Amino acid sequence: MKAAVWYGARDVRIAEVGVPAPLRGEVLVEVAYCGICGSDLHEYADGPHAIPVAEPHPASGATAPLVLGHEFCGTVAALGPSVTGLAIGDRVAVEPNYRCGACPRCRAGEYNICRHFGFAGLMGNGGMAEYAAIPAYMAHRLPETVSLEQAALFEPASVALHALRRAGTTPETVAVVGLGAVGLLTVLLAGERGVRRILAVDVSPGRLELAAGLGATDLIDAGREDAGERIHELTGGEGVDAAFEVVGSEIALRTCLAATRRGGRIVLVGLAQEVSLDAFALVNNEQSIVASVGYRDTYPELIRLVAEQHLDLTPVVTSTIVLDDLVSHGFEALLGGPGNQVKILVDPTAHRTGAAVPHPPADRTERQR
Amino acid sequence: MKAAVWYGARDVRIAEVGVPAPLRGEVLVEVAYCGICGSDLHEYADGPHAIPVAEPHPASGATAPLVLGHEFCGTVAALGPSVTGLAIGDRVAVEPNYRCGACPRCRAGEYNICRHFGFAGLMGNGGMAEYAAIPAYMAHRLPETVSLEQAALFEPASVALHALRRAGTTPETVAVVGLGAVGLLTVLLAGERGVRRILAVDVSPGRLELAAGLGATDLIDAGREDAGERIHELTGGEGVDAAFEVVGSEIALRTCLAATRRGGRIVLVGLAQEVSLDAFALVNNEQSIVASVGYRDTYPELIRLVAEQHLDLTPVVTSTIVLDDLVSHGFEALLGGPGNQVKILVDPTAHRTGAAVPHPPADRTERQR
Repeated sequence: MKAAVWYGARDVRIAEVGVPAPLRGEVLVEVAYCGICGSDLHEYADGPHAIPVAEPHPASGATAPLVLGHEFCGTVAALGPSVTGLAIGDRVAVEPNYRCGACPRCRAGEYNICRHFGFAGLMGNGGMAEYAAIPAYMAHRLPETVSLEQAALFEPASVALHALRRAGTTPETVAVVGLGAVGLLTVLLAGERGVRRILAVDVSPGRLELAAGLGATDLIDAGREDAGERIHELTGGEGVDAAFEVVGSEIALRTCLAATRRGGRIVLVGLAQEVSLDAFALVNNEQSIVASVGYRDTYPELIRLVAEQHLDLTPVVTSTIVLDDLVSHGFEALLGGPGNQVKILVDPTAHRTGAAVPHPPADRTERQR
Repeated sequence: MKAAVWYGARDVRIAEVGVPAPLRGEVLVEVAYCGICGSDLHEYADGPHAIPVAEPHPASGATAPLVLGHEFCGTVAALGPSVTGLAIGDRVAVEPNYRCGACPRCRAGEYNICRHFGFAGLMGNGGMAEYAAIPAYMAHRLPETVSLEQAALFEPASVALHALRRAGTTPETVAVVGLGAVGLLTVLLAGERGVRRILAVDVSPGRLELAAGLGATDLIDAGREDAGERIHELTGGEGVDAAFEVVGSEIALRTCLAATRRGGRIVLVGLAQEVSLDAFALVNNEQSIVASVGYRDTYPELIRLVAEQHLDLTPVVTSTIVLDDLVSHGFEALLGGPGNQVKILVDPTAHRTGAAVPHPPADRTERQR
């Protein structure tokens, strides 16, 4: 089968490899779509970051070279020994994080911060391939009313949903700082969860427009105005109940701190490095900085929202490409482009089915209206 | 009457001033004790920090020179017009923060972060005087079973109690980093609230010994060992559920981050300035940094704990002085001393009653045993 194999920075090869055999407790999934995540991009551009190269990852046992891709869904093609509750032909969304089930955090239900924290597609083989063998616990069966196009977005939507849960009881007003796929999905899901006022912040007019289509009530172009000040103006001098940092930079964190009211929460989703902040103001304003990593127990809610509320996650998809184009039309488009790409999906079986259709932003904008 | 009046940095005068007349809604309190807080010390050493000098504070209408002291208690000596529920002769603990009662945070019960946030004794006249006129809402009547010696500690104990509440549902294991009066009271109240394991961290062997007497289960001398590493060893590699930063420094914050488990909380009580931290680790460990400022609705619980559980807050008192000695035996002892002073109480009416007795640390340690 064809697979996108990470060998090193700037060395991702579309290679012919054997179809993996599902081991005990695993299922083989024929992949329908696999999204490109910012982490994949970082591994491509200047990795390894999370990919194990020296020591095998404790959960997967894998080291590079390995198959990239953790945002995927597909159809069960084979069952390993001892798998129950799934059948060949089931359409499934893959929740790609490993969990040991035994550490204190797993026992508390917080498996996203398991001692052996990791993702299939980064710390083990993933879904940018025709087939992927995954632990059965990662597979969520989809009801007939949920399409694979929607399920392809469950992974980034889970990051957004978990971040919203980390904001505590539903806030009335939120600011979302950074409108990549996760930021945009945070806007969408905030509205779905009853947030009354959603202030979207980015430097890209195109992304701000997308946010408006997904339910943002106020658009703030941080390249043209001071976002913190503008948010205070828009909220009668108070600031928002919660701000989501979905960039991963000190400047975005400072914007969030400035935008948030006394006693409010800043939810940190983006992965910054060393940041500097004003602890004196933080304490006097009694704000909280709440980190949010990955997700836990989000897939059932997303399945229900799509099935029952007809939630549409697909507006964040700006193109769908074939596996052979992963580097040229995927990674390089995201790294070098003018920033009008948001979520790019890879269809790794398109060469067999003829399914992958170019999916440019223009089409997308058309379809939204 | 005698009062300690702040005129400027290094210029606190024990002056003869008029007894204030209680205005509408105010009560006049004859002060029994007033503790010296770190904030008073900062105002003395290199203020003004919180003291209004140019613009009057919106809640108190005051500017310097003003009477210092916000940790006080005493006996109601006179009532202003329209005061109900209090009578002359009532012994009261003073909860010194102003609140407007009208801003969004006050309406939500979070009056510690009122728009007009401030303290009598910093932003208005306080309790380092024979008498203080305060809004009646600040006065909590004491039952007979609660002594004024205990009530003198309610203010710093409130800071500790609020910080513990900000840690969320009772943690099983906590680290308290910094054993000043608030840190020591955090140790004491953590035990009172059912925390199973309390790791106390400081660089002073004397303060660590005090913490042991107040219920700390493990003592860590941060001057001799890496506190973060030691805490991981002591907690089977996991880290604590919550860590309290009660120093106000970047190094203490870093110790807290290192000491706390994945998914745990760092409660920020100390007032640092600009701090630098590793946001990447914060996110991957899904920790929260929760600020805690002042307190709200803590006095009733403290009154109940002292009255019903016979909680003793007084071990943190290392000396009691007369008003005339405030600068020499109070501020200067705390600024220049070898660090064996923790909480110094001022007895501003001792010259009339002959009540204030020197209260050296040796006596204290003796009495604890």
